[in-house]
Amino acid sequence: MTLPVQEDEVLQRIRRMLENGIEAFGLRDDAAVLDVPAGGPLVVSVDSVVEGIHVDLSLCSPGDVGWKALMGALSDLAAMGATPLAALVALCVPGGSGDGQLTLGVMEGVAEASRASGCAVVGGDVSGGNQLVVSVTVLGTSEPIDPPAVARIGAQPGDVVLVTGPCGASAAGLRELRRGRGGSDTPGLAESYRRPVARLREGRLARLAGAHAMMDVSDGLALDLHRLAAASAVGLELDSVPVAAGATEEEALGGGEDYELLIAIDVVGAGMLVDRFSSEGLRRPTMVGLVVEDASVFTLRGQALQPSGWQHRLG
Amino acid sequence: MTLPVQEDEVLQRIRRMLENGIEAFGLRDDAAVLDVPAGGPLVVSVDSVVEGIHVDLSLCSPGDVGWKALMGALSDLAAMGATPLAALVALCVPGGSGDGQLTLGVMEGVAEASRASGCAVVGGDVSGGNQLVVSVTVLGTSEPIDPPAVARIGAQPGDVVLVTGPCGASAAGLRELRRGRGGSDTPGLAESYRRPVARLREGRLARLAGAHAMMDVSDGLALDLHRLAAASAVGLELDSVPVAAGATEEEALGGGEDYELLIAIDVVGAGMLVDRFSSEGLRRPTMVGLVVEDASVFTLRGQALQPSGWQHRLG
Repeated sequence: MTLPVQEDEVLQRIRRMLENGIEAFGLRDDAAVLDVPAGGPLVVSVDSVVEGIHVDLSLCSPGDVGWKALMGALSDLAAMGATPLAALVALCVPGGSGDGQLTLGVMEGVAEASRASGCAVVGGDVSGGNQLVVSVTVLGTSEPIDPPAVARIGAQPGDVVLVTGPCGASAAGLRELRRGRGGSDTPGLAESYRRPVARLREGRLARLAGAHAMMDVSDGLALDLHRLAAASAVGLELDSVPVAAGATEEEALGGGEDYELLIAIDVVGAGMLVDRFSSEGLRRPTMVGLVVEDASVFTLRGQALQPSGWQHRLG
Repeated sequence: MTLPVQEDEVLQRIRRMLENGIEAFGLRDDAAVLDVPAGGPLVVSVDSVVEGIHVDLSLCSPGDVGWKALMGALSDLAAMGATPLAALVALCVPGGSGDGQLTLGVMEGVAEASRASGCAVVGGDVSGGNQLVVSVTVLGTSEPIDPPAVARIGAQPGDVVLVTGPCGASAAGLRELRRGRGGSDTPGLAESYRRPVARLREGRLARLAGAHAMMDVSDGLALDLHRLAAASAVGLELDSVPVAAGATEEEALGGGEDYELLIAIDVVGAGMLVDRFSSEGLRRPTMVGLVVEDASVFTLRGQALQPSGWQHRLG
């Protein structure tokens, strides 16, 4: 019997791709079956990358889109201090030439991010459409300690606020790519835009060091710091903005997609965290400010800071 | 502090909607934290509904789209014999008037399907876009018996093939709606198209009765029976097609989205299954044919059957 169909053939090639170099299971049935380590809870999240909204296919490859989608979702696990277990990928792909090359290109990037992060892709779905949409659901595990995950709620007056790295490189990379200068002049910036990395080890260590609240910088430092403060019903007095080399302070505050982590933690915990990062060979986090009791305070160097950043217009 | 943003407001309304009447948790953080019942494995799947591909918004409401997306994903759990635990919803929504009404309408339908199935929505993501896309990931649990889930692989020569109900009602409903007759003449058919129901109880009972192979009818009876046979490396001799009232045999074979279950099981198990369905008040399944050893055989009433059905054209 020959299958008179093209979708099933593309799916078979995706299965082979994902099984090459990583323990992939499922993908052959309606659903995948996972063994979950006993004891700890499951941490779950979903994130999407939409062509024309989050990415421009003239500035990055289909593989970049796949990479960004999986890493963006994994960043949500990092922000909870969880360890990746498995991912499921839903693709909506324009018909185009109908040869499946865009689908396979996106899944190549997903497979690369899967290998880089150790997160197996165990299921997926592919549909036609008029716009590329990649939605990734990630499942993570957490040691059975209390708390099992770090929420946004929990920052306390007197906490210091740390950021795991400088921000704005992704936005600066996009700016350079738009100017047609993504290649030779500033390869690091373009790479930050095309291949961001979720801070999984940093998130887990911050949780173990007793972080009170944590989230990732996906929509811009200013908006995400504001969200952390609002969720915790506290104010923030910021002293400094960690700006990536080649980026502007505006890009660091409003650019988004840096996937660095924001961590609110007491002073003793902060010292422990810095030591642990150092002994694991991770970049030293930057202290950006202090949590204050008055929830109406949101300042940078004493001036009111606008919580600007990426927001979707939703019909 | 006022948030100068619209996305965050829409998300807050979605949270209130999902918490109204069902135990919803998470939705406030980067990720949700789930307690997983000890012992059994986790069964996971993802499924999408795309405007213009799977649904036409002139023939069904935003709420219908949300309902169909969650039920379609749950049908994959039903086909494994799993019990729903939680769902995550990724929405891509055109900007339109920017008032969030389409987003909220879709999520109303998701919330209704969530209540009807007992599957809590624990996380989500909303993006802009130029086409409505609803991707739903579902997590299910399974009793720690062997096998923990029923795959497509496993149908054996001599097995009977059962279908949990007549097919084609969804396709016939779509036909009636396109003719402008979805309302009064044939309300049942339109309802089958707009509000399909995943066969969760049937799937679990079939697994407990020892089903050898199982899958749901999402792309048409002929194509999905062919997939079941191909996965199991067996042939099928079909005697009959269960056609829903008001539908044609062609619609039953090629229509899709019926979400009835195909079950391959030995004769003794089939008897047990029919008894269990009866004692639980479920519809009596229809026997459609027999599994044969020769994998080149795929016949209906002795004539070769074309495995036609829905296939995406993928770029």
